[in-house]
Amino acid sequence: MIIVLRPEATEAQVNHIIDKVKALGLTPHVSKGSERTIIGVIGPEDILRVTPLEVFPGVENVIPVLSPFRLVSREFRKDDSVIDLGKGVKIGGKEIVVMAGPCTIENIDSLYEIAKEVKNAGATVLRGGAFKPRTSPYSFQGLGKEGLQMLREVGTELGMVTISEVMDSRDVNLVADYVDVLQIGCRNMQNFNLLKEVGATKKPVLLKRGMASTVKDMLMSAEYILSGGNFSVILCERGIRTFEDSTRNTLDISAVPVAKQLSHLPIVVDPSHAAGKWGLVPALAKAGVAAGCDGLIIEVHNHPEEAASDGAQSLIPENFASLMGEMKAIAKALGRNIL
Amino acid sequence: MIIVLRPEATEAQVNHIIDKVKALGLTPHVSKGSERTIIGVIGPEDILRVTPLEVFPGVENVIPVLSPFRLVSREFRKDDSVIDLGKGVKIGGKEIVVMAGPCTIENIDSLYEIAKEVKNAGATVLRGGAFKPRTSPYSFQGLGKEGLQMLREVGTELGMVTISEVMDSRDVNLVADYVDVLQIGCRNMQNFNLLKEVGATKKPVLLKRGMASTVKDMLMSAEYILSGGNFSVILCERGIRTFEDSTRNTLDISAVPVAKQLSHLPIVVDPSHAAGKWGLVPALAKAGVAAGCDGLIIEVHNHPEEAASDGAQSLIPENFASLMGEMKAIAKALGRNIL
Amino acid sequence: MIIVLRPEATEAQVNHIIDKVKALGLTPHVSKGSERTIIGVIGPEDILRVTPLEVFPGVENVIPVLSPFRLVSREFRKDDSVIDLGKGVKIGGKEIVVMAGPCTIENIDSLYEIAKEVKNAGATVLRGGAFKPRTSPYSFQGLGKEGLQMLREVGTELGMVTISEVMDSRDVNLVADYVDVLQIGCRNMQNFNLLKEVGATKKPVLLKRGMASTVKDMLMSAEYILSGGNFSVILCERGIRTFEDSTRNTLDISAVPVAKQLSHLPIVVDPSHAAGKWGLVPALAKAGVAAGCDGLIIEVHNHPEEAASDGAQSLIPENFASLMGEMKAIAKALGRNIL
Amino acid sequence: MIIVLRPEATEAQVNHIIDKVKALGLTPHVSKGSERTIIGVIGPEDILRVTPLEVFPGVENVIPVLSPFRLVSREFRKDDSVIDLGKGVKIGGKEIVVMAGPCTIENIDSLYEIAKEVKNAGATVLRGGAFKPRTSPYSFQGLGKEGLQMLREVGTELGMVTISEVMDSRDVNLVADYVDVLQIGCRNMQNFNLLKEVGATKKPVLLKRGMASTVKDMLMSAEYILSGGNFSVILCERGIRTFEDSTRNTLDISAVPVAKQLSHLPIVVDPSHAAGKWGLVPALAKAGVAAGCDGLIIEVHNHPEEAASDGAQSLIPENFASLMGEMKAIAKALGRNIL
Repeated sequence: MIIVLRPEATEAQVNHIIDKVKALGLTPHVSKGSERTIIGVIGPEDILRVTPLEVFPGVENVIPVLSPFRLVSREFRKDDSVIDLGKGVKIGGKEIVVMAGPCTIENIDSLYEIAKEVKNAGATVLRGGAFKPRTSPYSFQGLGKEGLQMLREVGTELGMVTISEVMDSRDVNLVADYVDVLQIGCRNMQNFNLLKEVGATKKPVLLKRGMASTVKDMLMSAEYILSGGNFSVILCERGIRTFEDSTRNTLDISAVPVAKQLSHLPIVVDPSHAAGKWGLVPALAKAGVAAGCDGLIIEVHNHPEEAASDGAQSLIPENFASLMGEMKAIAKALGRNIL
Repeated sequence: MIIVLRPEATEAQVNHIIDKVKALGLTPHVSKGSERTIIGVIGPEDILRVTPLEVFPGVENVIPVLSPFRLVSREFRKDDSVIDLGKGVKIGGKEIVVMAGPCTIENIDSLYEIAKEVKNAGATVLRGGAFKPRTSPYSFQGLGKEGLQMLREVGTELGMVTISEVMDSRDVNLVADYVDVLQIGCRNMQNFNLLKEVGATKKPVLLKRGMASTVKDMLMSAEYILSGGNFSVILCERGIRTFEDSTRNTLDISAVPVAKQLSHLPIVVDPSHAAGKWGLVPALAKAGVAAGCDGLIIEVHNHPEEAASDGAQSLIPENFASLMGEMKAIAKALGRNIL
Repeated sequence: MIIVLRPEATEAQVNHIIDKVKALGLTPHVSKGSERTIIGVIGPEDILRVTPLEVFPGVENVIPVLSPFRLVSREFRKDDSVIDLGKGVKIGGKEIVVMAGPCTIENIDSLYEIAKEVKNAGATVLRGGAFKPRTSPYSFQGLGKEGLQMLREVGTELGMVTISEVMDSRDVNLVADYVDVLQIGCRNMQNFNLLKEVGATKKPVLLKRGMASTVKDMLMSAEYILSGGNFSVILCERGIRTFEDSTRNTLDISAVPVAKQLSHLPIVVDPSHAAGKWGLVPALAKAGVAAGCDGLIIEVHNHPEEAASDGAQSLIPENFASLMGEMKAIAKALGRNIL
Repeated sequence: MIIVLRPEATEAQVNHIIDKVKALGLTPHVSKGSERTIIGVIGPEDILRVTPLEVFPGVENVIPVLSPFRLVSREFRKDDSVIDLGKGVKIGGKEIVVMAGPCTIENIDSLYEIAKEVKNAGATVLRGGAFKPRTSPYSFQGLGKEGLQMLREVGTELGMVTISEVMDSRDVNLVADYVDVLQIGCRNMQNFNLLKEVGATKKPVLLKRGMASTVKDMLMSAEYILSGGNFSVILCERGIRTFEDSTRNTLDISAVPVAKQLSHLPIVVDPSHAAGKWGLVPALAKAGVAAGCDGLIIEVHNHPEEAASDGAQSLIPENFASLMGEMKAIAKALGRNIL
């Protein structure tokens, strides 16, 4: 923590701050320059972070030096975390994991048909929503438990890992009973009680970045889950909200290398929710692979015209298969592989 | 809903869409222009909204005409909603309601002292956090139930309306037992299950705008609460996330007149979380009054240096009282009043 | 400047940086903490700012301590700058200056009629565009020199200060010959050559904030003009670009107190371009006065249906007069006044 | 253009609008629905675009249907434009063009050395700044004409196409005399007079996207150049300004497929200015190739510690060569190639 003083700060004000820092058990380093005095406190910042030094008289600015996250950081763990999703699928290593399926689970026949198609194309994880966060209270809210049962059934039948969103702290155990990977949606990235609940399970968690969250904010939310004892967290870049209106959200492709620098956790790209239009999905998915992501989560539907939600951004199986071919070629060119 | 067709759309494609619209029980109006054909469907849009018309062959674009919200809209209710908060305080009318108090409830003595000060200055609602949404799992998370008890005690003692945040769908009944107004924080604005739970109570709800949410998004979240049967919703503008870094968030002052045009619900301004620095709070609070808000929610602390959270943005009672004087003068100049 | 080293930085790397700092004639202060070593250089930062210390081996982060601007800063000049616009109008003092008129100058009769109306309501500065920055090459680009002549004629006739935009470094002398105040539009806020040209004149300059510019960026652009010898600069907040789509831009009302803290220059609010809709203009204008602005620039047109540009955001004279009444009341309530 | 009327719009108001539309020589299509009346005008929208229909009584909203650009659109030209840059280099076809070099031209020896390195690695275009848009008036502003001479000399010597920025409408002819491709920087994307000047030359123009500009805004700026008679325009995505602070700007990778859908013009990615940190540049560059860009522009410096500007984001030649190897592999995997 660097405390920058105002040019007119008095000796007494400087001493008041020094006393406070010492009272907290920390060591202040005072440097007097020609234009400013600064006080450096290069120890455990957490203690200072909760002290509102900005309001101390004479203080102009307080600048943190260390990152606020610990367990998720590269410093805590140098090597990439490889997370076992079960059924032989691991994420975070050389292999890029593809998760695919419908936005919403509609019925078991449709789910099974889509699952077969995506599996044939190389997807190893089946996605499908049972609890749906809909912006309108009048929209279809998902099949709930019944949908989870269908997902488990199809996943078991085809030997695919399953993933589905949990939206409510009360539903964590229910969803965990049915699926292999718990998904936290972007609107709940800072639903801290929900994070604590999934942190208390042993299930892998896919944590989607919030629309107004920086990569560091996402890592702080991941820290909630790791600090609860669950180290199986997969980050997910799905686009942030900007002024650009030709896409639903702006895919922040830089989040992939940034997260890789700051953290040991794997990161997945969701091109479907970022684009909002199926025609843009392939370019974004390929960009994700080239940027170094560890997996992708892609919406696929066999009859987008009839989809209960997000039809506009769903690929048909034929286009998905074609995209998989291109992604495999890129992965190979970069020394990685997809299935 | 306006369906804009591609220049090369075929007769068969146009008919396929017309058939779909009719199958949904709606009436299509086809207009053929020199550069494009468009199909207007000027009926209940909800039916169409869930149909992914964008993926129909030949469609270039689908443009909604009606707003997706109903109960919160000006069309549904022409007059401003006036909401009774109890203890003689009403919001949405000529009187501007000021809510003030500490960010976090720390202990009963401090809370009582701050409450007395803000009451003397003209605040009628006492704010104080018991469940705190903290970005770090290592930060103080609030006193919980114990804090709620303190808030009720002080509120009763001083005859002030009380407001506190509820973060978890499991805690709604607990918080509702202790406080007069339930607050939904910005990070939970799209925690739809939590919205449904507060919609099932009879308590007034203060709904804070999400950092990546438009005014219309906020109204859709309010619609969740109203559609659950609870019409006592107060909107709250508290800043959105932008690139500007001299404030914690960017107060979108336009949200006040925009919300007033679109909705009958009262709207409150939170200058403290928008600014993030106490020195900026008075200017933003005064701007809120001048722009036509129905209330303000302001953080006040008697010893900001010792505050458990948000010390940097808390006014000391003396500055708060001075601000209240200015706000009263502005309110009066505009034909409204504060206490 | 604070140079934060990586945990694994070697002694040799630290010395390499220290040598570089000393070679630049500056004094490094080294502080070794438990988790990091930092090097503080608390002297003239400009020298370091252009040295890419981030690429030196062992450096994790470089944090500036001082602001990059000088002449525009409060430290350079403690008191508010009061700028003389001529014809008895000064901006930056107790009096709030209102600038009003049509977006585009269309013909002399219309300009004269509008000017009379806004003058009667209390505006002292007449605005009108002769060179128009239009996003489409097919839109009307303004009357050019002919428009400037009309503006001068009407300004002289009515004794009003005149202001008009200059878009091209080649036109600065031309525009300066005809108007009292040169306006730099938001799209040219970082057209540095244009800034240098207006810095070389003696005319007051109204500098509009760019849509993607922070307040500090705006101050850096103002620094270009002051460093050229022209200290008569008026800042202008006119909205930034965000995801919110119910307004043309998001008025950053906090920019008013932020600019006042950082700089001695006066600041004006442009509610018309921020809102983009006349119905929202009064609320934003009143918020500007309450937040402490030194002036406003407002689009007024007597026949918005026929306006050559920006008709949708122009007030009719009757509404402008009514707004002026409210703004005067707010100004008075806060100890300032409008004409 | 779709004109949506208010629910309470009167017959007279509807007729007033219809009369206006007819007076403009257009044909209105009126559709009366259960909740709204809408008027469609599906002809040349330009005429209506400049008419402020929003201010007509009874109008709720005006929705454009057609894009405001013409010459740059896919409808105007179905096939991709291939632009000849001279010296055997063409952009827009199967081959991906790599432009590389220092941010600022510092001296001829350094430029020559860097140029040789990037040429050996496969770059065919040499970039180098002679006129530099610096946010601070106290920063080095570039060598000007002298720098252009060096660039021409090195380009000729090595047989490389040259590109350099022009910032001022007065300098267009000068820069055009020395370089093969004129660059318009992001801060000048809406400097419309500068666009007209480069539109009047026959030189290829690289147009960088503004930090607050949508893809459509960029296309409108390109339209200025094409409408001036110069069809040799290359678009450039270089990041937009968002709240994310771990990168200098947020690379909007979706801009690549979006621009390809809307326009026939080639598009280039600038990973250096988007990232702002050399360590992130390779991931973004590879993402650009995978997303389908036609070229890249990358900053390379042989001694970043000594660079006059942007040292932090410059690759050293060794890292650039390694990146080129990866980009070539990705291009090949997707059926394209780099040199």
